[in-house]
Formats: sequence, C-alpha cells, structure tokens
Amino acid sequence: MTTLDPKTNAVSLPQAPQATNFRLPGPTPVPPQVAAAGAWPMMNHRSPEFTQILRRVTGNLQHFFQTEQPVLCFPGSGSAGWEVSIANFFSPADTVAVISIGNFGDRYALAAQSFGLNVTKIDFPWGQAADPAVVAEKISQIANLRGVFFTHNETSTSVANDVAALSKAIAAAVPDALISVDAVSSLGCVSVPMDELGIDMLFTGSQKGWMTPPGLMMFAASKRALEASKSAKLPRFYWDVNRALDAMSHGYPPYTIPVSLWYQLDVALTMMRAEGREHVFARHAEMGAYVRRRAQELGLKLFADQRFASNTVTAIYGPEGKDVKTFLKTLKEQDNVVFAGGQAKLDGVIFRAGHMGYATIDDLAEAFNAVERRMGE
Amino acid sequence: MTTLDPKTNAVSLPQAPQATNFRLPGPTPVPPQVAAAGAWPMMNHRSPEFTQILRRVTGNLQHFFQTEQPVLCFPGSGSAGWEVSIANFFSPADTVAVISIGNFGDRYALAAQSFGLNVTKIDFPWGQAADPAVVAEKISQIANLRGVFFTHNETSTSVANDVAALSKAIAAAVPDALISVDAVSSLGCVSVPMDELGIDMLFTGSQKGWMTPPGLMMFAASKRALEASKSAKLPRFYWDVNRALDAMSHGYPPYTIPVSLWYQLDVALTMMRAEGREHVFARHAEMGAYVRRRAQELGLKLFADQRFASNTVTAIYGPEGKDVKTFLKTLKEQDNVVFAGGQAKLDGVIFRAGHMGYATIDDLAEAFNAVERRMGE
Repeated sequence: MTTLDPKTNAVSLPQAPQATNFRLPGPTPVPPQVAAAGAWPMMNHRSPEFTQILRRVTGNLQHFFQTEQPVLCFPGSGSAGWEVSIANFFSPADTVAVISIGNFGDRYALAAQSFGLNVTKIDFPWGQAADPAVVAEKISQIANLRGVFFTHNETSTSVANDVAALSKAIAAAVPDALISVDAVSSLGCVSVPMDELGIDMLFTGSQKGWMTPPGLMMFAASKRALEASKSAKLPRFYWDVNRALDAMSHGYPPYTIPVSLWYQLDVALTMMRAEGREHVFARHAEMGAYVRRRAQELGLKLFADQRFASNTVTAIYGPEGKDVKTFLKTLKEQDNVVFAGGQAKLDGVIFRAGHMGYATIDDLAEAFNAVERRMGE
Repeated sequence: MTTLDPKTNAVSLPQAPQATNFRLPGPTPVPPQVAAAGAWPMMNHRSPEFTQILRRVTGNLQHFFQTEQPVLCFPGSGSAGWEVSIANFFSPADTVAVISIGNFGDRYALAAQSFGLNVTKIDFPWGQAADPAVVAEKISQIANLRGVFFTHNETSTSVANDVAALSKAIAAAVPDALISVDAVSSLGCVSVPMDELGIDMLFTGSQKGWMTPPGLMMFAASKRALEASKSAKLPRFYWDVNRALDAMSHGYPPYTIPVSLWYQLDVALTMMRAEGREHVFARHAEMGAYVRRRAQELGLKLFADQRFASNTVTAIYGPEGKDVKTFLKTLKEQDNVVFAGGQAKLDGVIFRAGHMGYATIDDLAEAFNAVERRMGE
C-alpha cells in the first residue's frame, strides 16, 4: 500500500463543488453510475481489457451515429471536431462554405480560416434556422466548392437546423462537396442518421448528450471523406483520422487516451442502449416541449424561431424589468439552480436552459419552479 | 432527483477493472483522494469557481516547471505537446533538428515532418544519452536552424538526457534556435528548471508524474517563443497558445475543458506541494536507485547506459531462458503486478518498470518480490 510523505495526507485538499440542478447546455449532469467510473483504477490502454472497451464503445457510438463507419474518440471538446473535420480532408486554399446561424457557426468558420481555407460564410439571423433553398442557391454559385459545413443544433441560439432538408439540399446543389455536420449538442439526443443523410463528417462531445464529463470528441467520416483524406494536404498528426483508424483496427488507440473518461463513456452508452435510442430521442422531445411551454406560461419570451426550436437547449429572454445576470446569480445562490447566460451579442440579454443527456421533466420542473418563485419577487 | 427509464438503472453495467500494482510508465496509479475527484459534480468552466481552480493549478504548475511563464493545460496526452510546440512557433519548411534517443524522439521527428518542417534528425543508439558535444557540432553546421527538439526522459529506453548540459550546449551552438524539451515522463519527478536553463517550450502529461489520469497536457512557452509565435505561419486553432493565454488572462479556458480531470490535477498538485518539490524529487531518485539495485541483485540486465539511468522508468532485459511476454502475463494474472513491455524494436526483448508519481519503495519491493518468485519457477 502506497503511503507518501505523511504531510501529503494531512494537507487540506480542494473540496468537491456543491451538487446543483445543473442546467447548462454543456457540461451536463453525470449519473452516479457514470461519475463512479471516473474513480476506477487505471488500466493499460494497450491491453486486451482496453480493446474490449474500445470495441464496445465504438459499436454503441455507431448505433447512435446511425452509421456503418467506425467512430473515433479523440481527446478534446467539440471545438476539436472542427479542427479534425478541416485538417484531415482539405488542402491549403481549398474553397469551403460555412453556414452560420450563431456563435458556434461563426467559430467553425474562424477555425476553417485559421487553417488557410478559402471560406465563404453564409449567415442567417441569430434565432433563425438556415433556409435550405437559400443555401442551395448560394453554394451552387461558388466555383470549386470542396466542402460545406454547418451546425446542426446551434447552442448559442437554441435553434436546430433541419439536418435532413439541409443535407439533401446541399448534396443536390454541390454533389462533389463534402458535408460536415457539427452535431456537438444534438447527437445522442436527436436523430441524425449519418449514412442515410449522406453526411461525410459528423461529430459530437462527451459533455453534451452523452451523460459523461467533458474531454472526449467523437467523430465519424464517410468512405468518400476518407478517400478524400488521402490527397488532403493540410498538416495533421494528433488529429490524424487515418492514423487513429489504423491503430483502432489493431484494437488500440493511437496514443495515450483519457482512460477514465473512456470508462465513463462506456457506462453512459450502456445506460443509453438500455433505455433505447428511440426512448432517448422521445425523452428529449418531451423535455424540449416542456421547457418551451413552461417558459411561455411564465410570460417569458423565447429567443428562437419556434418552428426550429431545439430539443436540447432553450434560449429565453430575461424576465421583463430584471437584470438577467443578477437573476441567474440569485437562482444559483438561493435556489441551487444553474442556467447558462447568453454568448457574444446575447450576453446579458438571454439565459439558456440545457435539457440534454441525464435529465428528466422532474429536473426541469424544479428549475422552472425556482424561476417562477424569483420572478414573483 | 433524476430517474431515467427504469430499464436504464436495471441494466448490467461495465464493471471497474481490478486494482493492480500498476507499474506502467504511464498511465500511473492515482491516489484515492485524486480518484475521488473524478466523480465530483460538474461545474461551469466559465464561472468564478472554476477561475479559482485555474489560478491554483497554474500557480502550482509554475512551481514544478520552475518558470515565471504561465503554464497551459490542453486536453490531450504528451503527443499533443509535440504538436503544440510545432504548430505555434514555426512556419512551413522551417528547419529544425530533432535529437532522438528512442521511440518517442523518433515520433517527435515524425510529428515535425507531418507539419512540413525541414527536419534534420540526430540519432543516438537506443540505450545511450545524447552527447552534448556531438549535438553542438552537428547543429552548428545546419543553416537557418530555427529550433532544436529533444526528449528529456526517453520512456522507451529509460534513459534521461542531461537536460542542463544539453540545453546549454544547444544555446551556445545556435543561440537563435528555440529549444523544445519533451519532459512528458520526467517533469514533476525530476528537476527541470525551465527558466534557468533557457528552455523555450516545455511540456508534460497528467498521467505521468502528476498522479492524475491521462487527458491533460501541460505546456509552457518562454517569452522569446511567444514572440516567435506572432510571425509563425503554421495553421493552428485548437492548440493556439495565444488564444489560450488570452482566455486564461480573463480567468477562463478557451473552450470546454475536461472539468473532472482538472479537479483531479488540482488535488494531486496540492498533495505534491504538501510533500514538497525537493522531497518529491528525492523520492524519485530513491525509487530509481532501488529498482536498478534490485533488478541487478536478481541477475537481470539493465538496458540503459547507467550513467544516464532514468529515475522514473527502468528498462530491464527479460530473465534469461524465459519468454518476456509470457513472463509479464504470468505476473499480471498470478501476482496482480502490471509492468510494460518494450516498444518498437524492443518489443519482446525488455520489460519496463514505471516508478513515477504515486509510488513508493514499498510498491516497488512488492512488484520485484513477485519478479523474484516467478524467476525461481
């Protein structure tokens, strides 16, 4: 039994934060069974035991990605998905279009520009979804278009693009362009049938719908995208999809991976499979409907075009006559309920309720009961 | 209280792996206090509470990096350190030299080549350290040399380069080149005084000397390196050091970070500060000496040039007349002791004992008692 210098064990250590009704749209709450796995003993990530975990996690992710392609888990957050989708499949100065309906779409475009791609940005007003007909018309006018990127579920505005209509419109307008979908805050909660929709790159993050702490970014590429990667010249090493696929074919990761987060994702995916994919999707649809109805009953205005309301996050204008930041601070300190504020130009204007992953109507009812009480003050 | 579909809670979940006497050179064992923090409730990574953690972790890392420069924590493993040290500070076709004394030096060179740098590789035989005089002579003949990279502690061969002598020789020979030191498996265990030695880029991984699971890569850059980053043209976004420093100056990370791994690193660093830096270094020196003495007493041959023996990992030839892989398998299955095998050309030739981070002489004695028993069979 290891006993370090006695001082080490006598010291006052940082303490666990208080558990809250945690309504951020990422990180999201972690079930006790998943939390416990974060404390499991280490194992060799190049061992038959880890290969079993890798195969089980991959299979369960394929089920939720609705793809026959292998799904890779990279260390990192959703933003790493942008970089993986860029660095592996394109060459310097390649022309791509990025459709943005909010802050995360804007940042996807910035990532593509940072990698020296020739980016045409197609913006829609915040709160609105992308119009597939407008997108099709604009992208069909771009010469040598190699890729079209869009956010499925825009976490900053709580708008969900119609992923099927948009994918189909893009494929029809520019059949040779690769379609990359940032489904960071929707996958695992909402159906995104990758293969059926002809999506070429699809990615998400463990801290969103997957009931797992942040630190894993899950990514799949179509056969066509992998073919394109062979001639793509942007530099890559850590994010190299082919290197990772090659290692995975031997049952191992390409480098040391976050072992404890893999344990946790493995447990979470097993729970999601037990609940059943359709049940998970239905639960999120119910939660989305509940939050929208409840907020409106309280007289609060919703930010998003309600035809495209997200089922994983809801952006809500602050109560009339109240400073939204002070309002959120009171809810946190007095009611132990944590909402997110607005991002970029919505800072201080809206608040956002997350309802993805490990959450039920009961959690949301408790959170909005607190909102109701504080509005009456 | 959240209750998902009842099936979710009734299902048979993946179970914790058995705790072992875990003697890999990464991942390494995690103390119970650190393990527990992996199960703590999530918090907002853009909140005053997280800012406190960020500032405490940064300060403690600066103490162990022995630098006044800020230390960044990126998601990822040690290999990400190679990419961060390349992408931020160089431009395509820049000339660099990579000194390799083993598998990780070879991979650092491969990473630099993958990013389109013009790489001169300076190899020393596996088991040997780099000779500072030879290095100085070779690099002084390279025109327009922009950087020199080397591994401090080569995990594949258990050789520790003389980081002070090597840094000084490089600085004298090519004063304008940036010096990058991969100290993944030494920092926190062995003294690497970054500022005093004039190291420009220095990095390590949470799963080595830091008593924390894998998933964080800690990185510091000198003022001179940060100045060079302003004109460096390699593409970067996720690994962008300046973007991360800018966010950190406001108390936040640049994107969603692995919150639970940060909790764990915070606890581990607090324990390491309580033990005391010099005590931690002395403990590793004692452990290194113990393993080398014990192995030799058992009649086992050490792989590394003993003038440069690592104090965090020891590579040992398999016992004469025994297949080393079968030997390790028996130790694992019968004695619950896990060693690492050899890498690349040393696969099936050596085994490696890790003695870094959360480990004491007692742990090592138990492991080598098992080796002694099995050698007698």
